[in-house]
Amino acid sequence: MVKFAVLGCGRIGRMHALNLARHPRAELGYVYDIVADAAASVAEATGAQQAREVEEILAADVQAVLIASSTDTHLDLLVRAVEAGKAVLCEKPIDLDLAKVDASWARIKERGATIMVGFNRRFDPSFKALRARIQAGEIGRLEQVVITSRDPGPPPVAYIKVSGGLFRDMTIHDFDMARYLMGDVAAVHATGAHLVDPAIKEAGDIDAAMITLVAQSGAICQISNSRRCAYGYDQRIEAFGERGMLQAGNQRPTTVSFWNASATEAKDPVLNFFIERYTPAYLAEIDHFVDCVEQGTAPLATYRDGREALALADAALESLKTGQTVRLG
Amino acid sequence: MVKFAVLGCGRIGRMHALNLARHPRAELGYVYDIVADAAASVAEATGAQQAREVEEILAADVQAVLIASSTDTHLDLLVRAVEAGKAVLCEKPIDLDLAKVDASWARIKERGATIMVGFNRRFDPSFKALRARIQAGEIGRLEQVVITSRDPGPPPVAYIKVSGGLFRDMTIHDFDMARYLMGDVAAVHATGAHLVDPAIKEAGDIDAAMITLVAQSGAICQISNSRRCAYGYDQRIEAFGERGMLQAGNQRPTTVSFWNASATEAKDPVLNFFIERYTPAYLAEIDHFVDCVEQGTAPLATYRDGREALALADAALESLKTGQTVRLG
Amino acid sequence: MVKFAVLGCGRIGRMHALNLARHPRAELGYVYDIVADAAASVAEATGAQQAREVEEILAADVQAVLIASSTDTHLDLLVRAVEAGKAVLCEKPIDLDLAKVDASWARIKERGATIMVGFNRRFDPSFKALRARIQAGEIGRLEQVVITSRDPGPPPVAYIKVSGGLFRDMTIHDFDMARYLMGDVAAVHATGAHLVDPAIKEAGDIDAAMITLVAQSGAICQISNSRRCAYGYDQRIEAFGERGMLQAGNQRPTTVSFWNASATEAKDPVLNFFIERYTPAYLAEIDHFVDCVEQGTAPLATYRDGREALALADAALESLKTGQTVRLG
Amino acid sequence: MVKFAVLGCGRIGRMHALNLARHPRAELGYVYDIVADAAASVAEATGAQQAREVEEILAADVQAVLIASSTDTHLDLLVRAVEAGKAVLCEKPIDLDLAKVDASWARIKERGATIMVGFNRRFDPSFKALRARIQAGEIGRLEQVVITSRDPGPPPVAYIKVSGGLFRDMTIHDFDMARYLMGDVAAVHATGAHLVDPAIKEAGDIDAAMITLVAQSGAICQISNSRRCAYGYDQRIEAFGERGMLQAGNQRPTTVSFWNASATEAKDPVLNFFIERYTPAYLAEIDHFVDCVEQGTAPLATYRDGREALALADAALESLKTGQTVRLG
Repeated sequence: MVKFAVLGCGRIGRMHALNLARHPRAELGYVYDIVADAAASVAEATGAQQAREVEEILAADVQAVLIASSTDTHLDLLVRAVEAGKAVLCEKPIDLDLAKVDASWARIKERGATIMVGFNRRFDPSFKALRARIQAGEIGRLEQVVITSRDPGPPPVAYIKVSGGLFRDMTIHDFDMARYLMGDVAAVHATGAHLVDPAIKEAGDIDAAMITLVAQSGAICQISNSRRCAYGYDQRIEAFGERGMLQAGNQRPTTVSFWNASATEAKDPVLNFFIERYTPAYLAEIDHFVDCVEQGTAPLATYRDGREALALADAALESLKTGQTVRLG
Repeated sequence: MVKFAVLGCGRIGRMHALNLARHPRAELGYVYDIVADAAASVAEATGAQQAREVEEILAADVQAVLIASSTDTHLDLLVRAVEAGKAVLCEKPIDLDLAKVDASWARIKERGATIMVGFNRRFDPSFKALRARIQAGEIGRLEQVVITSRDPGPPPVAYIKVSGGLFRDMTIHDFDMARYLMGDVAAVHATGAHLVDPAIKEAGDIDAAMITLVAQSGAICQISNSRRCAYGYDQRIEAFGERGMLQAGNQRPTTVSFWNASATEAKDPVLNFFIERYTPAYLAEIDHFVDCVEQGTAPLATYRDGREALALADAALESLKTGQTVRLG
Repeated sequence: MVKFAVLGCGRIGRMHALNLARHPRAELGYVYDIVADAAASVAEATGAQQAREVEEILAADVQAVLIASSTDTHLDLLVRAVEAGKAVLCEKPIDLDLAKVDASWARIKERGATIMVGFNRRFDPSFKALRARIQAGEIGRLEQVVITSRDPGPPPVAYIKVSGGLFRDMTIHDFDMARYLMGDVAAVHATGAHLVDPAIKEAGDIDAAMITLVAQSGAICQISNSRRCAYGYDQRIEAFGERGMLQAGNQRPTTVSFWNASATEAKDPVLNFFIERYTPAYLAEIDHFVDCVEQGTAPLATYRDGREALALADAALESLKTGQTVRLG
Repeated sequence: MVKFAVLGCGRIGRMHALNLARHPRAELGYVYDIVADAAASVAEATGAQQAREVEEILAADVQAVLIASSTDTHLDLLVRAVEAGKAVLCEKPIDLDLAKVDASWARIKERGATIMVGFNRRFDPSFKALRARIQAGEIGRLEQVVITSRDPGPPPVAYIKVSGGLFRDMTIHDFDMARYLMGDVAAVHATGAHLVDPAIKEAGDIDAAMITLVAQSGAICQISNSRRCAYGYDQRIEAFGERGMLQAGNQRPTTVSFWNASATEAKDPVLNFFIERYTPAYLAEIDHFVDCVEQGTAPLATYRDGREALALADAALESLKTGQTVRLG
């Protein structure tokens, strides 16, 4: 049994808190949010204690801290929790500033703490099976990867402004998925566009992108992103090798299809957003983290994975500005 | 909060007990099985108390009893539970003897108890959506229904011998599904075959069947059954109307598909058996029954539904013997 | 090069005539229709000579006669053509009267003529591949077959009245397909319904049906028919064996699918009727018949196949009247 | 009736010659190939006359010339044919040298000849329907396009050496498809890889590529290419707009799918190469060109379209060398 505290009780923190409260090998001890009402609501829903301050949690007998607060607080909380001897599961991104991420690592790396970054898609049953089948050699050497990732609709512009931009906020998941499938990346090229909402442009961000990656292995990868998708949360992967292709597709609420005079085999819209689409992934993520804490094993998504995805986002941003392919490492 | 006891702790009783233990509005008070070890194991897994006798449960402060014991005990337990003032959720079939089912009804009907029969497929999200869309008029008047229902493999012959035969044990779900979609049935014709295992034939049963139903509405329906299916638990429905068709298909563990030189778009085998395939249905079934008990509303699958499905099984058996279309009611 | 005459220049005769005119190893010498204008139009479109009388064709130097006239003339023309030494490709059904079919056979069988019945679906590339894969053992022993066959809309009632009824006119193709896949049939049960058009009922026919067949091999089969299908010409087969299932599906004009807020992966309506749906089958049928004539080999669809399909239609009609399973031979 | 000559009787020239010979409104007068045996074989198969020299054809009474000779001869033959007053259908690419393409245009543009470039994919029924539905507004404003284009296997290295490289030989079709769907292109970035055959690398070419285009409209596009594809000729398009997505998929020889213990719904490999995959497109292309010649209307794929696709290939090559996004015009 691993005793947890959850820092940050917004939408995603609340979801994690509920998952922890129901997990057979986890116990949710404390919850905290800078907005006391948010924490109170989650405390009531889960039976956890509401902490008044972060320090109360760091001093308490919890083994693990799940950080789901706003991005600008992630790194500070992560460092403090590690220094307080806790295991940490931190939502992505670790931070928006790569230099800070590296400086913090220098400070904490000797502690050997269990630190995991919330790249939930690594735990999606379909993406996980796709990767396992690549590694089992079903398609031979991996040559090309195509990642489709479209949000159903844009977040509020207020969020966009503090998000670090599309690459650090949204594509970061796809950068991680590319690394999960292909290994480290040698070069990045990015193209951005303003297609969805002029307010996003005014806020200094793009709302659609197409990115090309070259892996150190020689494999190449395309990512396509949009902040809008009419038919739901579009999350697909294609992986090509010398002997075949593996695809992982979208999820729907039912298997019903409709046939009539204007269309046939018409299926439901795909599940609408990350909490619905990745429900099993979030549960498996927690499960894996509990295993790591209990058994002292290395998480599937490490601090370095968080750092590398951010480095790819930075490289994409540089490519967007210069038009140039950016080499890494 | 509805307090439950579970009678019968075999595979399906255990599953229900675990679902009840996790349900936010249910409390699992007691479990019982004639095999004390089976009950003890479920008691340990759920935190429920193990009853030594059924009487202990009938006398206890439980509001609802879930009957998942062997078929020959269903009806007696149901009657006793109703007479003890409990709400009852009883696994199918209520009994193998239609006369007894009717006699028991005569005895308990005045009590107005909440009695639900475990036709779990009515709660499958896809089948439920298919029915709702028929009723919303998407395909116009319902004209034809095709139900495909194949088990991945045959049960032990010892089970076959006490099962009441394929129609009462397996097709009973499909008879209920036909009634759920089309309403009451006016005529039945059945063809049986021995295709899977000679031991089933020796036990006096068939292992595959094709059945035709005529509904009172004029709609017609085909059911195909087999005790064996190489690719998993095959559970599909097609509903045709004057303006189109609705299909509900099989479920798979992932969305991954494989393309190579010998096949393309090859998907996973379908989920293998009823507990995996109908997980969401069993949860929704419990949820609905808790609603009915709390609010005093009528269950979606009533004692009469259990009775009618059994009557269709009997008619199918008669048709199998005579070769004749059998008219009902 | 095989020289042909076409008897009957309606919709299907015209199609065959055009296919023959373009065939590299066939030559269309003559066309005839009792309606002279129909023959004239086809003669003009194909460059064939218009015959004034059937006798002119029987006396001419044609090796093969394709009979696509009205059903009541098929058998007489077939016998006369065989007696004139021609090879014959005759549209289905040979006749509506089984006794006449048998009597004619007694008269012509000694001649050893090449006689083929127009069961075009045997030549459909998908159905042919499905059968070949069954015979190659991909699914092990064949156990169950499900044939779906729905016309997009009913023919004129005037046609219904002379058609011999649904079983002899429409289901006859499905009876033949069942025999093509399973071999000879031992028992038939049929259920009919009036769902599409009251005028069809007034004309003494049904407009929808569900039929069960038992093959001599022990395999069982369901056929579902309707004179109406909102989404096009619904032509599908499922074949189940101990090791798997083979499906053959509908055809669409394009591969385009549409995804939006109300539906995803919505495809085109299926091809609308037999000439579009079975274009490659009709071409392959002619090709096979030319081979048979040139090489003296036996056709894939024989006079006996025509006779047996008609016998199944008669048995279905008897079952429809009596409610009884009808045993054959 | 339009009288044609075909210049070049290799694989694709032969296919065009056979299509012309069967076309109801075309007459194939002459065929020519620098390899006399190749021309003789096509002459025999089609009944056309074999020309000894190109001049013989230019002087003859043919209205239209189809150029399917080796790429290095295309432009010279095109100019000479136009100057001889012929309509021209020229296989892609017009030439490998953009300056020559422009110089030749300056020389012939005043003649107003009917000149069409063989971008066969514009005539594919599925791609054509996809474009028509975009233009009809089904998905709203077009925002993103993803083009998948993989050959089943690499051509001989000897061919690679004279092909102008992957972009001018293979991607040129995809560049044209991008323009067909999105209009003119403003910027190009290309990444190449050596994944398939070291001999291609030695020959100075790449064998896989991922390309990003920005259209003048603001829409963005990804193309992925490979000289190898295990499951056949992979030809797919996805077009995203503000209101939905349209997909066009691969083609298979049958609709059969296979379900067993290791995979379900497994379909045939896709059609293996361009002549099989694009059979209906090549027929429709000829049909359209005949229309243009007969009616004096503008072809759907013009000299300028050929020029622009080549300019995109050149820009991609420059991007490949410099790593930079290349802006056009």
